[in-house]
Amino acid sequence: MAKEKKVEQITDMEVDFAKWYTDVCKKAELIDYSSIKGMFIYRPYGYAIWENIQRELDSRFKATGHENVAMPMLIPESLLQKEKDHVEGFAPECAWVTYGGGEKLEERYCIRPTSETLFCEHFKNIIQSHRDLPKKYNQWCSVLRWEKTSRPFLRHREFLWQEGHTMHATEEEAREETQQMLNIYADFMENVLAMPVVKGQKTDKEKFNGAEETYTVECMMHDKKALQAGTSHYFGDGFAKAFDITFTGKDNVLHNPHQTSWGVSTRMIGGIIMTHGDNNGLVLPPRIAPTQIIIVPIAQHKPGVLDKAAELQASLQAAGLRVKTDASDNSPGWKFAEYEMKGVPLRLEVGPKDIENGQCVLVRRDNGEKTFVSFDELEAKAAELLDAVHEGMYAKALKNREDHTYVAQTLEEAKAIQEEKGGFVKTMWCGDLACELRMKDEAGMSSRCRPFRQEKLSDKCACCGKEAKEMVIWGVAY
Amino acid sequence: MAKEKKVEQITDMEVDFAKWYTDVCKKAELIDYSSIKGMFIYRPYGYAIWENIQRELDSRFKATGHENVAMPMLIPESLLQKEKDHVEGFAPECAWVTYGGGEKLEERYCIRPTSETLFCEHFKNIIQSHRDLPKKYNQWCSVLRWEKTSRPFLRHREFLWQEGHTMHATEEEAREETQQMLNIYADFMENVLAMPVVKGQKTDKEKFNGAEETYTVECMMHDKKALQAGTSHYFGDGFAKAFDITFTGKDNVLHNPHQTSWGVSTRMIGGIIMTHGDNNGLVLPPRIAPTQIIIVPIAQHKPGVLDKAAELQASLQAAGLRVKTDASDNSPGWKFAEYEMKGVPLRLEVGPKDIENGQCVLVRRDNGEKTFVSFDELEAKAAELLDAVHEGMYAKALKNREDHTYVAQTLEEAKAIQEEKGGFVKTMWCGDLACELRMKDEAGMSSRCRPFRQEKLSDKCACCGKEAKEMVIWGVAY
Repeated sequence: MAKEKKVEQITDMEVDFAKWYTDVCKKAELIDYSSIKGMFIYRPYGYAIWENIQRELDSRFKATGHENVAMPMLIPESLLQKEKDHVEGFAPECAWVTYGGGEKLEERYCIRPTSETLFCEHFKNIIQSHRDLPKKYNQWCSVLRWEKTSRPFLRHREFLWQEGHTMHATEEEAREETQQMLNIYADFMENVLAMPVVKGQKTDKEKFNGAEETYTVECMMHDKKALQAGTSHYFGDGFAKAFDITFTGKDNVLHNPHQTSWGVSTRMIGGIIMTHGDNNGLVLPPRIAPTQIIIVPIAQHKPGVLDKAAELQASLQAAGLRVKTDASDNSPGWKFAEYEMKGVPLRLEVGPKDIENGQCVLVRRDNGEKTFVSFDELEAKAAELLDAVHEGMYAKALKNREDHTYVAQTLEEAKAIQEEKGGFVKTMWCGDLACELRMKDEAGMSSRCRPFRQEKLSDKCACCGKEAKEMVIWGVAY
Repeated sequence: MAKEKKVEQITDMEVDFAKWYTDVCKKAELIDYSSIKGMFIYRPYGYAIWENIQRELDSRFKATGHENVAMPMLIPESLLQKEKDHVEGFAPECAWVTYGGGEKLEERYCIRPTSETLFCEHFKNIIQSHRDLPKKYNQWCSVLRWEKTSRPFLRHREFLWQEGHTMHATEEEAREETQQMLNIYADFMENVLAMPVVKGQKTDKEKFNGAEETYTVECMMHDKKALQAGTSHYFGDGFAKAFDITFTGKDNVLHNPHQTSWGVSTRMIGGIIMTHGDNNGLVLPPRIAPTQIIIVPIAQHKPGVLDKAAELQASLQAAGLRVKTDASDNSPGWKFAEYEMKGVPLRLEVGPKDIENGQCVLVRRDNGEKTFVSFDELEAKAAELLDAVHEGMYAKALKNREDHTYVAQTLEEAKAIQEEKGGFVKTMWCGDLACELRMKDEAGMSSRCRPFRQEKLSDKCACCGKEAKEMVIWGVAY
């Protein structure tokens, strides 16, 4: 059977989760390897997911007053060095251009690992007065970080992302921006990607190089590991001072503006795969699936079947849905397996008997549920089922996270939970770096965040027993 | 007066065309300089034009069955060298990465100047059978060419573009693709950018490095120089052989596929500026203008004026038009000059008297024509006027080209025309490189193209007097 053959190609996730993951990336034709380690090729199906993500996010960015720009991809070494913490964090991962046009360059240029320094140089040129503020910019581009290990979507040397960079007249406004963008990310991940998130603040150890504060949305994957899916940073006026960016305020006095940056990347596609996928392959959230409904004609050689399929496709498309028909000469069984592998949210089967009965069958990818739908209510029912798939996927992912989130009162307890069960562990924390490092060394977990939704589990830090300041969520992270 | 002050800032194009051009780029806030020579910053207004261009082209690419992908930005030196003509053309302009992650790399990596080699490496992986063909891919990205001179939009070291790369089972199909994409470019430039084009084939001297044939669309700028606005290349199976890309045909025999590539870049924005702009600044084609209509309220402090402006904006936006209102406290005169500078196709003025009369004024950017329009027919009339602006701009640009296209029977005549008048010069040509080089050396013109629309001007080559093969258009090019 074609179906069995296809499904056999993917390793079961219970057998080898990492292999299952790369099998899905490769066999659903999301990605290919290039000859440079860690630099991947985004294939049409993978890139189409990214385009849908871009469209959704871009409209949210624009609706909140952000403008897109494009900055150069190269950063002179002297520019990168202007902010001390920033260069310390990124210099080890830089790729350096040393020759151009046949000549050795006088100064090395780094391929951007992120663009704060480039934006600051530009902001210095264009910000003079309070009338020039705020500047709320975003760019869609790729960045490069020369890391040792790599993995499709999760860790690339070069990856696609968006980076927002904004400048504000006041601290208050910049802080509001930082929160607004975190909330846009959270809303997008939950309501578009069906990925429940934990919102919180990073510890000083885990924050972005050069930021005063980093906020994060954290997700739990199938294997109970954490994925940091997006971050939003508040910089204060540190970069502005380092780059000598000033504006004349309404008070006629020179001030430094307050800065933010925020970004998400194609890493989210890795998150989608590991949150929703199963042993048959991808399961795509309907709102970003390149194809939302695949029509598989049954007994397609019989008169009227392909015509009916074309008619149904046209009416679903007219209702604004993304629909394709596979009228190839592959067997229906092969097609079922193929589009399961590709994670298409709904399959529509229509054959001669269905046509006689004035109906077709819709099959949900997330749970296999079949629904007979009469032709005259197809558009409404299909839209309804796509929403149901979204809700079902979200609920399943939330349950996975809730089922694998634990409370620990001591480091030993936390360690035991991680070893025996995996997942998120909540503990109280005194705020000291030493305790954070012990949790990493002894229990193998990093702090994921100091969640906004705090709980008081006890009065004492789980590591040192001293007075606790707050609750932290710990986990093993991608 | 604010208006006079503003307009004075731009150099007249008759005084210094190059300075007029950079003034417009800078003062219309399209672009800014970075600290690396030749690497520019696309500012929000400039980038918004590019986004509109992208949206229009991308939908045409997808409608003709192309899929977007993203390839790595780096090319190993050994990969670049696989096709001899290609590397000879591009190696002198490469920027080389030699260090990554703190270590000297074993092999140098070039930042892509174009991506034929990367696509070929990938095609080799994914093409095995005739069932895998055609592959019709496109990517939106930036490329880098380390040139000595630079100019906003026209010549960047790094520029934004799209590059299509396709593989076909037969030569015929690949040739059709090459023509189809050239036609899509021509149609887009004429019907969206209002830029008339001459379609034709490049001479061997001017064709793309590694291509068998290069097709081009050539435009004439205000200063009568030529701009090569887009190209489409037919590669035959040269790269396929160099990269050992084969497929099993229906005949069960191994074949090399036939290849094309095609691209346009942000250079088109330079073309828009130099085709349509005037001494008051930009004149943007309505179909890609970020703002199509700017509403300037007159006596806006008077009751009802701003409400009416908001109402008109809402109804125009509901009709699908891109509209903004400037309700700032700048004077109407300043606003008129500002949006003229920015090239907004239509200005809508509305004040207390207009409201009394149930009408407003629409002013065309291209010719200053004023039309009184009653509120109840505003949407229809605005859309009509935007089309009229497009047609007017196209007609003016076409007249410029026709008025400055000449026939020469000899090289001396061609030289005299170029020196006295500038523009395009049509001559007959024998096909020899020697004659092409003489036209360059003696008359300062390169061959723009061998136009599809041939005319028989005489029997003899204008340079050598031998038998002519075809007509060529010559010009001074950007």
